[in-house]
Amino acid sequence: MRKFLIDTDTASDDAVALIMAHRWPGIRVEAVTVVSGNVPVEQGVKNALYTLEVCNAATPIFIGCSKPILRASSYAHWFHGDDGMGNKNYPEAKSKAQPAHATEVIIDTIKTYPGEITLVTLGPLTNIATALLRAPEIASLVQRCVIMGGAANTVGNVTPAAEYNIWVDPEAAKIVFHSGMQIEMVGWELSRHDAALTAAEIEAITSFGTETARLAMECNKTALDASINIQSAPGLMLPDPVAMAVALDPGIVKRQGKYFVDVEITSELTRGATIVDELGVLHKIPNITVVWSIDVSRWKEHLYTCLRS
Amino acid sequence: MRKFLIDTDTASDDAVALIMAHRWPGIRVEAVTVVSGNVPVEQGVKNALYTLEVCNAATPIFIGCSKPILRASSYAHWFHGDDGMGNKNYPEAKSKAQPAHATEVIIDTIKTYPGEITLVTLGPLTNIATALLRAPEIASLVQRCVIMGGAANTVGNVTPAAEYNIWVDPEAAKIVFHSGMQIEMVGWELSRHDAALTAAEIEAITSFGTETARLAMECNKTALDASINIQSAPGLMLPDPVAMAVALDPGIVKRQGKYFVDVEITSELTRGATIVDELGVLHKIPNITVVWSIDVSRWKEHLYTCLRS
Amino acid sequence: MRKFLIDTDTASDDAVALIMAHRWPGIRVEAVTVVSGNVPVEQGVKNALYTLEVCNAATPIFIGCSKPILRASSYAHWFHGDDGMGNKNYPEAKSKAQPAHATEVIIDTIKTYPGEITLVTLGPLTNIATALLRAPEIASLVQRCVIMGGAANTVGNVTPAAEYNIWVDPEAAKIVFHSGMQIEMVGWELSRHDAALTAAEIEAITSFGTETARLAMECNKTALDASINIQSAPGLMLPDPVAMAVALDPGIVKRQGKYFVDVEITSELTRGATIVDELGVLHKIPNITVVWSIDVSRWKEHLYTCLRS
Amino acid sequence: MRKFLIDTDTASDDAVALIMAHRWPGIRVEAVTVVSGNVPVEQGVKNALYTLEVCNAATPIFIGCSKPILRASSYAHWFHGDDGMGNKNYPEAKSKAQPAHATEVIIDTIKTYPGEITLVTLGPLTNIATALLRAPEIASLVQRCVIMGGAANTVGNVTPAAEYNIWVDPEAAKIVFHSGMQIEMVGWELSRHDAALTAAEIEAITSFGTETARLAMECNKTALDASINIQSAPGLMLPDPVAMAVALDPGIVKRQGKYFVDVEITSELTRGATIVDELGVLHKIPNITVVWSIDVSRWKEHLYTCLRS
Ligand SMILES: [Ca+2]
Ligand SMILES: [Ca+2]
Ligand SMILES: [Ca+2]
Ligand SMILES: [Ca+2]
Repeated sequence: MRKFLIDTDTASDDAVALIMAHRWPGIRVEAVTVVSGNVPVEQGVKNALYTLEVCNAATPIFIGCSKPILRASSYAHWFHGDDGMGNKNYPEAKSKAQPAHATEVIIDTIKTYPGEITLVTLGPLTNIATALLRAPEIASLVQRCVIMGGAANTVGNVTPAAEYNIWVDPEAAKIVFHSGMQIEMVGWELSRHDAALTAAEIEAITSFGTETARLAMECNKTALDASINIQSAPGLMLPDPVAMAVALDPGIVKRQGKYFVDVEITSELTRGATIVDELGVLHKIPNITVVWSIDVSRWKEHLYTCLRS
Repeated sequence: MRKFLIDTDTASDDAVALIMAHRWPGIRVEAVTVVSGNVPVEQGVKNALYTLEVCNAATPIFIGCSKPILRASSYAHWFHGDDGMGNKNYPEAKSKAQPAHATEVIIDTIKTYPGEITLVTLGPLTNIATALLRAPEIASLVQRCVIMGGAANTVGNVTPAAEYNIWVDPEAAKIVFHSGMQIEMVGWELSRHDAALTAAEIEAITSFGTETARLAMECNKTALDASINIQSAPGLMLPDPVAMAVALDPGIVKRQGKYFVDVEITSELTRGATIVDELGVLHKIPNITVVWSIDVSRWKEHLYTCLRS
Repeated sequence: MRKFLIDTDTASDDAVALIMAHRWPGIRVEAVTVVSGNVPVEQGVKNALYTLEVCNAATPIFIGCSKPILRASSYAHWFHGDDGMGNKNYPEAKSKAQPAHATEVIIDTIKTYPGEITLVTLGPLTNIATALLRAPEIASLVQRCVIMGGAANTVGNVTPAAEYNIWVDPEAAKIVFHSGMQIEMVGWELSRHDAALTAAEIEAITSFGTETARLAMECNKTALDASINIQSAPGLMLPDPVAMAVALDPGIVKRQGKYFVDVEITSELTRGATIVDELGVLHKIPNITVVWSIDVSRWKEHLYTCLRS
Repeated sequence: MRKFLIDTDTASDDAVALIMAHRWPGIRVEAVTVVSGNVPVEQGVKNALYTLEVCNAATPIFIGCSKPILRASSYAHWFHGDDGMGNKNYPEAKSKAQPAHATEVIIDTIKTYPGEITLVTLGPLTNIATALLRAPEIASLVQRCVIMGGAANTVGNVTPAAEYNIWVDPEAAKIVFHSGMQIEMVGWELSRHDAALTAAEIEAITSFGTETARLAMECNKTALDASINIQSAPGLMLPDPVAMAVALDPGIVKRQGKYFVDVEITSELTRGATIVDELGVLHKIPNITVVWSIDVSRWKEHLYTCLRS
């Protein structure tokens, strides 16, 4: 069994990514840790608990940091709805979060399985950075760290310069990016254009009739509107599920490369920009594998497969 | 006759752009003003004088600012050679620069022909910004300002975040970009990929046998090597001539749009980045027309036509 | 005759400084140039014209830059009143500003009298910086440049980190501070504490019965209130007249030294801070003479003498 | 018994402060936590262990963070010698550091004694900030937090703008300063001028003949030279012991006040500056009690008393 640890600011697209991880064969999700991001961390925990209940999954869920390292919180209600799940008034899950703190679970899990953990991050990197500050030695013990975050030398989604997850806590991102972890950066741009779900594709998924397909499409209705109206997409963008697909099946990557990547933390204009030295002009040691393109058909096939069961 | 005013840090690709402006029918170049950039401003003046001598052009040339507004000078000898012209030891021109200062000539020329001047900038924007500080009213009197500069939400050439002309004097760029001038931004990326001249195309141009074709290809040999070896281009990139082609024939633009664009001045990592709000998330008033793509065949045809005569 | 050139954002304390320069024996004020600062530049010109009319002085007055180099204007109506002169509805002066632009007058005057000009700046340094960008050679031609501006490693007045004149246009200050000019920095702190005019001293001055004494005390009534209520001073602080007193009589300086001084331009928190390397830890070449203390009795005597006639 | 928790980057002046805390009646030091600062954290642990051995104290010592949150380490060997203790080749202590991590000990100790702990910080604030990121609730559980750090609107020691402890990890300082903890800031300036130990005073202390007096004066010989030669002090500056004296006896404070204080993190020039809104112009909620002056005689008496036994 491959061992996954998922850190998430659970909102509507995180929910889909969580479902995928729990439906993919051969994966055991050791823990889900929640961080402040799209919604306050307590709401994120509720959303994660509900999602896993729909999945019939008993993965333990842990609450983490309630605000970014240095910045004020900045939620994404405009994209995901007030509750992050499209305001569908989902019931409270029966299970509860575990008592331990997310950062300790991250440290302990990685140390328990040295070299075995695939860490998938779907939110701001506050939990991971805080764990690294306390225990920098975990960086070299992670097998892969797949990050949904950043915009690789392209336009951002929350500002023209930056992607939301990195923008919310750029200091955390800088700590993680320079920690020595084996990182694969899956920028939001990989969920744009033909990677977005069209109306027909959304309908097809809904017709699967499974509980997970229902939840996945229903809770993303607010995100669908925002994708089209605010970010000029041809349909529903699903950045977290795309990153999860890369984590589950690295074979969907068509082009990637390892580069020196840095995160902007001093300027407001470019706050959270992920600067990739793709031409190698800085002559610095590459620290991040940047995913430039994926096989869009396979990404959608993977999504369908996960939501059919 | 259309009236052009060209501001340039004359090095090898500026030389080609100067030739184009002087060979294009129906254009009168009122003045060439020189600024510190690729080379010290005195060397830039020498290069401009020699280039116009080869063109048999009597356009007056004026020396301008010898360093950026707040930053130290940073020449591009690594790209254009020690003299900016590929180290071919070109002779000194017979004519000299005129005594007036470039910034005064810029102010006076624009005021003399209100609404008639096409300002083409091929170097850092120090001269233009200094003129605007002294006489902000000229901004509304320029017909078009075509700027070779920036990288529109894409990788830069001098750093991963920025294009050379903007990076050298980002404060000047910020002043100009927010001055109210009608600006068309032609980023360096428009000279990449198939817009670069292949070995065959360079040979074809050389075979024209004209003095201008000889100079254009000969002085860019250092730039050709740098294009291929440092910036992974398939041939010779010519950013200034591409911008000049847009100035001469706006019809070569395939896609453009007007956006709010800002210039990064506070951070070292992203210094000089040109941030284009292409998704409109900032809800600010558009200030710059950004050129996204050009008709590459027509750009090359225009270049050939200019160098054949 | 000593030759003065005064650059001012004329508000109530500038007015007193202008009077002092015009009453001091052996001084000829070659020109008064006005800059945006406490009030819009057009209002500053009006205030300067009125003040010189009260002085019966025919010094030519020139309008300069209408906004800082990169920042938005930020007037000091809260300190000096809406018109900068305590809202006394002073009549319009009969004379007008001269047609030339302040920056050109600054360049020309300094070049006409190389090594002879004492430049006194009482406002943001936009005019001086713009002149230096156009003609950097004037820096070495100024005899002394006495700057009212900055806070030498002490609390500021407009923010805890910065003094108003430097804060308004920190980029201009940075340009001037590193221009090579012989600069004496007279921080706002030299007008605090016992250098401020007490109620008794204000009454004494008013009782002189001269027009200049009347104007000086009357137009500063708003500034008096702000000194006491906003900046916890024991009376009326007069930064510009203190700097003028240093320019007129360098003998009032009790302690000064030459240091490397830099101006903060990247951060909002410390924008405009004047960082003085008083312990020499940076090992950089000193560029500014910082005035640490003055003979307060002599400063007040000089003020009285100037306002008595 | 009053309960102290001391966080220290143990070098020569930290050693004196540790001695003071262990000699003061009625104090129990619950733990000493060590952080990277003057010396690498492992060396700091050695120095702390040796110092407590000389004190015959069994206080447990814990190792903490090995580098600042975002910055590279920058040791103060130039001030304290290669080993931080004046290069006297002190023997290794018999005891060892405890296995737990400093940040966990900080969290646990404060939670074990809610409202009872006096936290005294003598180094960069990395450990405290990391603890706060993990457990922000401890901020309100600390009785007092006395910080040796900062320069209250005055010149710094490591740069003209900043004091060493804050400069080394300004992000940590910003986190701690805005955490809601009851903080008393004791700037380095309180150890300058007549608070420094003169040659006669150093001799007097040495003549006490105790082991602690010997260690205190011997290990600070390098610091004495640096105080005089680099920072123009009249003798040995002891910032950490001064802060400890304030923690032990708040009665030595002559003037203090509570203000809004912020830490500069964006600019290199002013990195780590502690900006105190002493005039209240920002109208923000005060977060830090700033100590402006102390009773120098009493500070020295306290020092003598502690070193005599
Ligand atoms: Ca997410
Ligand atoms: Ca050029
Ligand atoms: Ca003034
Ligand atoms: Ca210390």
